[in-house]
Amino acid sequence: MNISREQIEEAHERIKPFIHRTPVLTSRTLNAISGAELFFKCENFQKIGAFKIRGAMNAVLSLPKDKLGSGIATHSSGNHAQAIAYSARHSGTKAFIVMPDNSPAVKVDAVRGYGAEITFCEPNQQARENTLQEIVSRTGAEFIHPYNDYRVMTGQATAAKELIEEIPGLDCLFAPVGGGGLLSGTLLSAHYFSPGTMVYAGEPEGAADAVLSIKSNKIETAPYVNTIADGLLTKLGDKTFPIIKQFVKDIYTISDEEIIASLRLVYERMKLIIEPSCAVPLAALLKHKEKFRQKKVGIIFSGGNVDLGKLAGWFT
Amino acid sequence: MNISREQIEEAHERIKPFIHRTPVLTSRTLNAISGAELFFKCENFQKIGAFKIRGAMNAVLSLPKDKLGSGIATHSSGNHAQAIAYSARHSGTKAFIVMPDNSPAVKVDAVRGYGAEITFCEPNQQARENTLQEIVSRTGAEFIHPYNDYRVMTGQATAAKELIEEIPGLDCLFAPVGGGGLLSGTLLSAHYFSPGTMVYAGEPEGAADAVLSIKSNKIETAPYVNTIADGLLTKLGDKTFPIIKQFVKDIYTISDEEIIASLRLVYERMKLIIEPSCAVPLAALLKHKEKFRQKKVGIIFSGGNVDLGKLAGWFT
Repeated sequence: MNISREQIEEAHERIKPFIHRTPVLTSRTLNAISGAELFFKCENFQKIGAFKIRGAMNAVLSLPKDKLGSGIATHSSGNHAQAIAYSARHSGTKAFIVMPDNSPAVKVDAVRGYGAEITFCEPNQQARENTLQEIVSRTGAEFIHPYNDYRVMTGQATAAKELIEEIPGLDCLFAPVGGGGLLSGTLLSAHYFSPGTMVYAGEPEGAADAVLSIKSNKIETAPYVNTIADGLLTKLGDKTFPIIKQFVKDIYTISDEEIIASLRLVYERMKLIIEPSCAVPLAALLKHKEKFRQKKVGIIFSGGNVDLGKLAGWFT
Repeated sequence: MNISREQIEEAHERIKPFIHRTPVLTSRTLNAISGAELFFKCENFQKIGAFKIRGAMNAVLSLPKDKLGSGIATHSSGNHAQAIAYSARHSGTKAFIVMPDNSPAVKVDAVRGYGAEITFCEPNQQARENTLQEIVSRTGAEFIHPYNDYRVMTGQATAAKELIEEIPGLDCLFAPVGGGGLLSGTLLSAHYFSPGTMVYAGEPEGAADAVLSIKSNKIETAPYVNTIADGLLTKLGDKTFPIIKQFVKDIYTISDEEIIASLRLVYERMKLIIEPSCAVPLAALLKHKEKFRQKKVGIIFSGGNVDLGKLAGWFT
């Protein structure tokens, strides 16, 4: 394994002073609806509004001092961008962020608010990587990939670690899967700290590369990309894929209608703002609830950065 | 005083097993924006999604057994209706609810979900009272007024009591004012349990009867009623008014634009769903923030029952 139990423990100690220990919430209504006992790890309350600060902060704090001077750089459709911008400011260095030009306004504003330099590019993987490469060559900044980076994956593992510490004896754990940073971290934390816990993932039907990759045993691209879960559009990386392949119990695909139904439940019944990507694991559980009846289930609520102007389209 | 310190303490013991002790949340961002240290008592997480369960439950649990048999009745535009319906079901009796025919769908559905019998009426005070009177005459049900009832006011006082217990030394406390049930209860709890705490209220400009009533020293009707804060439309009662008159430090009127700006802050920065009426006290504080700089301020978040279909209109 490229990430050890000790590395996750060290990462947790490293980032602890600078992140929130987010609450674990429960809901009798959602327990009744699902038939399971649910524990929601609320990373929507995390700094920058999403778990991504864990990985970014761990990567930045792991850098030797002399590397920090040239700044850090990344490409991201949103939360990782904010996380890198925040972590850079925290460490007194500069952040260079490549963002697709269709990024949600609320995320662009937040990144700018942390003082990062934004370069927009076309919304595809190739444009992101080219633009990023140009910036790194020019500035010497350290590239911190949004998910395919062991420092980042190790940081993301700390969310599940905290949930496992707080709620021992979970039968299952649900996380969303986009590029696989959070999912691989969750799998490793379950493996090391709660080996009896089965980890499941939810993936949007409109970005269904991970199910396909598991099936064909190589990293695949999604057949098509069209979903409101804008944090889960990317494909797996060569560092996240092997961990997911080895440990994930199952990956369930979820339609946008199912995502919106779960968003509505969380808004109306739990009174929490979560973003569409964050509703995917709950939707996955509810879609297959007969399998999880009476089980003790942890769900990672990944983030709450919603463009409020978009709510209209979801709930009318 | 018609409500004693002991009565509030007894009410609290009476209802405690059946309500949530809601969390008190903080937000560094909102502290920075306001210049004050803010403590939010999150009654949006309360049973039925609002503080109203406190008063309703206290009233129902105070009834002698032989009175309960004929059921309980009320008129309400929303949260009190849910609270009475829930309390009736909890006590194994029937609830008769008169609701204005323009009540938010989410509130009507919730009341129905608790098994109450709903009678719709025109959306004005006279129609509410006439319809209610007819039901009470026919059924012998006990009328529990949404706010102008000492049992209800005493129950509502327990929200501020919990906040005061958890955060000692508050300089100020902010509550919304509609009919004055929550405000009068908050004033009494501050008076008895934290006499150094000044209590302020926020009132919508489009339902500004309370400021007027304080000024003219008698219960006034609002000059016009037009606001998104649909929980604060009613005027004060002869039981709530004298307490408010005696103890409230000031009442600030708030426009719908200011309410929406505070809603947006809470949604985006605190990741909490609150209803428009609930944003009014925060908006009041922010409008006069220079007066409260460096102060330790408690804010009662009254509820989170939002008709999601309406969000569109607020944030576009």
